[in-house]
Amino acid sequence: MSEKKDLQDCVEELRRERAQCSFDVEELTNIFDGGKELTARRREIEHLICSDPAFKDEVPPEYLSHEDLYTNEVRKVTHLMRKLAEHNIPLREASITQVHSVLRDGNPLIVHTSMFANALASLANPKQQQQWVPLAEKNRIIGTYAQTEIGHGTFVRGLETTAIFDPETKEFVLHSPTITSTKWWPGGLGKTANAAIVMAQLYTQGKCYGPHPFFVQLRDFDTHHSLPGVILGEIGPRLGINSQDNGYLRFDHYRIPRTNMLMRHSQVLEDGSYVKPIHNKLSYGTMVWTRVAIVHSCSKKLACAVTIATRYSAVRHQSELVPGKPEPQILEYQTQQYKLLPHIASVFAILFSASSVLRMQRNVAASISKGNVELLPELHILSCAMKALSSQDSTQGIETCRLACGGHGYIASSGLPSLYTSTTCTITYEGENTVLLLQVARYLIKSYRAGLEGLPVLPSVMYLTAPSAMHQSPPLSNQALIEAFRISSANLVKETESRLCRQFNLEQNFHYAWNRCSVALVHCAELHSRYYMCEKFLSTVESIRASDRVRSVLQDLCRLYLIHHITLNQGHFLRVSPCSSPAPVLLETDR
Amino acid sequence: MSEKKDLQDCVEELRRERAQCSFDVEELTNIFDGGKELTARRREIEHLICSDPAFKDEVPPEYLSHEDLYTNEVRKVTHLMRKLAEHNIPLREASITQVHSVLRDGNPLIVHTSMFANALASLANPKQQQQWVPLAEKNRIIGTYAQTEIGHGTFVRGLETTAIFDPETKEFVLHSPTITSTKWWPGGLGKTANAAIVMAQLYTQGKCYGPHPFFVQLRDFDTHHSLPGVILGEIGPRLGINSQDNGYLRFDHYRIPRTNMLMRHSQVLEDGSYVKPIHNKLSYGTMVWTRVAIVHSCSKKLACAVTIATRYSAVRHQSELVPGKPEPQILEYQTQQYKLLPHIASVFAILFSASSVLRMQRNVAASISKGNVELLPELHILSCAMKALSSQDSTQGIETCRLACGGHGYIASSGLPSLYTSTTCTITYEGENTVLLLQVARYLIKSYRAGLEGLPVLPSVMYLTAPSAMHQSPPLSNQALIEAFRISSANLVKETESRLCRQFNLEQNFHYAWNRCSVALVHCAELHSRYYMCEKFLSTVESIRASDRVRSVLQDLCRLYLIHHITLNQGHFLRVSPCSSPAPVLLETDR
Repeated sequence: MSEKKDLQDCVEELRRERAQCSFDVEELTNIFDGGKELTARRREIEHLICSDPAFKDEVPPEYLSHEDLYTNEVRKVTHLMRKLAEHNIPLREASITQVHSVLRDGNPLIVHTSMFANALASLANPKQQQQWVPLAEKNRIIGTYAQTEIGHGTFVRGLETTAIFDPETKEFVLHSPTITSTKWWPGGLGKTANAAIVMAQLYTQGKCYGPHPFFVQLRDFDTHHSLPGVILGEIGPRLGINSQDNGYLRFDHYRIPRTNMLMRHSQVLEDGSYVKPIHNKLSYGTMVWTRVAIVHSCSKKLACAVTIATRYSAVRHQSELVPGKPEPQILEYQTQQYKLLPHIASVFAILFSASSVLRMQRNVAASISKGNVELLPELHILSCAMKALSSQDSTQGIETCRLACGGHGYIASSGLPSLYTSTTCTITYEGENTVLLLQVARYLIKSYRAGLEGLPVLPSVMYLTAPSAMHQSPPLSNQALIEAFRISSANLVKETESRLCRQFNLEQNFHYAWNRCSVALVHCAELHSRYYMCEKFLSTVESIRASDRVRSVLQDLCRLYLIHHITLNQGHFLRVSPCSSPAPVLLETDR
Repeated sequence: MSEKKDLQDCVEELRRERAQCSFDVEELTNIFDGGKELTARRREIEHLICSDPAFKDEVPPEYLSHEDLYTNEVRKVTHLMRKLAEHNIPLREASITQVHSVLRDGNPLIVHTSMFANALASLANPKQQQQWVPLAEKNRIIGTYAQTEIGHGTFVRGLETTAIFDPETKEFVLHSPTITSTKWWPGGLGKTANAAIVMAQLYTQGKCYGPHPFFVQLRDFDTHHSLPGVILGEIGPRLGINSQDNGYLRFDHYRIPRTNMLMRHSQVLEDGSYVKPIHNKLSYGTMVWTRVAIVHSCSKKLACAVTIATRYSAVRHQSELVPGKPEPQILEYQTQQYKLLPHIASVFAILFSASSVLRMQRNVAASISKGNVELLPELHILSCAMKALSSQDSTQGIETCRLACGGHGYIASSGLPSLYTSTTCTITYEGENTVLLLQVARYLIKSYRAGLEGLPVLPSVMYLTAPSAMHQSPPLSNQALIEAFRISSANLVKETESRLCRQFNLEQNFHYAWNRCSVALVHCAELHSRYYMCEKFLSTVESIRASDRVRSVLQDLCRLYLIHHITLNQGHFLRVSPCSSPAPVLLETDR
């Protein structure tokens, strides 16, 4: 009988592994958190919350009925709110910590404290903010954000809920004319919220002005009963995030005062005349912020998954690498390393690209304040690209980590199933990925054509028509790999644009031609976005203030990331790139 | 306001879509079921079961607590058993129908009625079968199959539970010496089963003979209390299949009679001497059968998912293909077609390869009865390959279909989440995929080397060293695509074998060299297995007895499957294949 391990041995084994670490873990932690002070503050908040026995679940949430799960999470989230308020910790600060790990599988108040609060702040005029923000802060008003309907999600213009202005009573009449116009999904709507910001098609003086936001009370502030003309409920269990009470909402000619239209940007005056906003593009800001927040959270969830799976791989011993010898740690198997290491690299790639988009957002905000909105489209496109890639990468990465733990990754107590079920939805929400990638592709084609004609294009897409600097980089250097990306991406755009032209000649309709090329266009967008992520990863690693040892491990991860994504896309590289047939050579470097 | 649809319109729209079908749906259904009679029988059984109101859930299972979920499923499965017995419907016949859809998310008796029953039939000797089978059939004994432990799954030789023969009392002493030796996962063990077939390391006369099966009573047949020396319970909630009470089991020097060892193959005599089995390879049979059953079920689950997602795409209208025009069915978007159509093709590819492995199994069984076991390794390898690819393909396909339904695919009531959570586990169980693919790779390398030396190799791998017949097929014909697969796969094996040799020269140890090449070896196994599936798909479509219209649609699906997998693997094709740079040409055919 071979000597086998029990729990203490696992702990010892992890300690031994950690002792072999080549760099200062604290230093890398600080980089991950964004600075030493932020690490300290995060730990302070996490300690405050996680040490509080009130957050302990009597039984793991997975054992509870749908109803009890909700009740238990409401108990915890209200305690969390009170506690954060007591200690003067702003919600936004708490949200960058792991304190939400005390809430499991969702949070009935998250839409109230994030989207609803943000929307009030950015869409309500000062008078309206005075009226509602204090009530929302005291949780007298608990709000949600009701935009998506059964029939329409990403395509916001297609929303069917109507808000028709009645000049006689100076009210808007909210109505849900079809089944598909039913609001569907708002978090907290099923049981928790008593108000919502509702997006509805604004009609006044017989004309439709498109979707606009309205503040709508849904339930009685005292009895919590839904108000007459409001029909609402829960949409039922989902793949994950089941402690959030996602709901549906219908209006039956429900009247609200004119002044409930959120009027910071557009207005409807008492006589029903419509006043349009000065800057149409200013609403980009919130959307970009939300998408970057998704990118950040993807990076953190993937970080959790790779941590769990890597620790497991260090203590799990299985099979025989050499017959007759003791079973090795499964981390010794190349196939296991191949499953985990690229996703460890991915955590940093996502994190660094998110930081780069955030930096750009700050620059753009500064430009806008000087009246320059030129960079806004580029920011918008990059936030689309990063949201799409990071949601896909983190979802696939978490699933790979989960499967790399074998059967144990299937058990809820591993933590991996809920990481997966709470991350995969980021592929769909805040802009479905395929739709976002086609927006990126549209920008690429437009910029490529502009570049060909010698018109000015924005920095991130100049390479599409700019000559390559390939010959200057040593072969197989990181710079050469980045150049290979640039050339492959530029070529794919060129190839696809030609195809689009041929298709246009056949169809004589741009939109049909576009649709016929859209799979290829999505590939263009993916390759361009990947190039961007690789480039940001490399430039961050090269410029980061860090010790040699930390820089060295980040360089290894970056190199792995570049090679991994080149081999995954090897077809695109082999067709065009000067580093033809690189795969065997690159693969040899995997030792 | 545009005219929008309600439920009746959706029904109408589906009817219109179906009216456009180019072939006889009933004919294709018969092919899917394996014949007209099987379709009729399936429907008869499904009608009998699905029309029975006793199977109705008072609330959807997703709302229930973990405990109530189990109780409800036990109620339904016991009713199902009684009903099938009343109507003389054998369980194996029922299992090929969709009657299990009345059970949701698992079945507490599935291991009792399948693996336990099969194992008794194949591992117990006639006397033992006489003793236990009637009791199992009357459900007096409810059994499970306890092999996997916390510490060991796919690597069966590593199991730690011991069964030490005590010649004085003529008993085996079952014991769990470590935490990792705890049996973990057996379905039905947590609450339902009162007996198990337990795999344990057999020790007699001071020598270990490896894992052997034992019949072990775990709970009192009357009180259902666990017996002294047996410690068991449930392992807790999982990503899916939560109405099955998977359990854990430990033994504390638990004694069972010698005659409880299942002695059809090996035996321990009264004096403790060990008698080894005559044919060691005969146990392959059950394993192959189980894997082919997994392949079949993968095909059916994927079929459900593509059906749901395709129907949804026919009634869902979204966005604007041409600005200002009505919103099209999302099935009109090329990107949506790209998500769904390859997986419709995949359903048939998986189904036809499963049939081909089953046919081979019948041939092999016939050969074995004549004493010829030559084809057994090939059958084993093909069952590994098909299990690995079909579990991956169906899991990814179901997830793609789920995501193709946007937010609606995230809701439990769409049926897609449970299809996903109940399919992804097939990647892990009955042989973890990476381990299986490495077995396939070992066979490929061995066969390639044998072929080079002019030694005989089995039919499915002859192509690795046989000259290509490429020039005979018209360019871009299906046959040419299959040849391209053959050449790419043969080349990848050749390339990897050279690398293995180089690595061996560096390491001077085959096992280390093997590990260093194992990612590439997995790719070899995947490409070879894909080639096999493509080849079986094409040869089935070419030889199938079907009307021209059905054949034509199957030919389209087969063509799509070939092209799709070539573009997915384009790197391997571009590096070597004579159809160099095929992607743009092939992609043009996508209209």
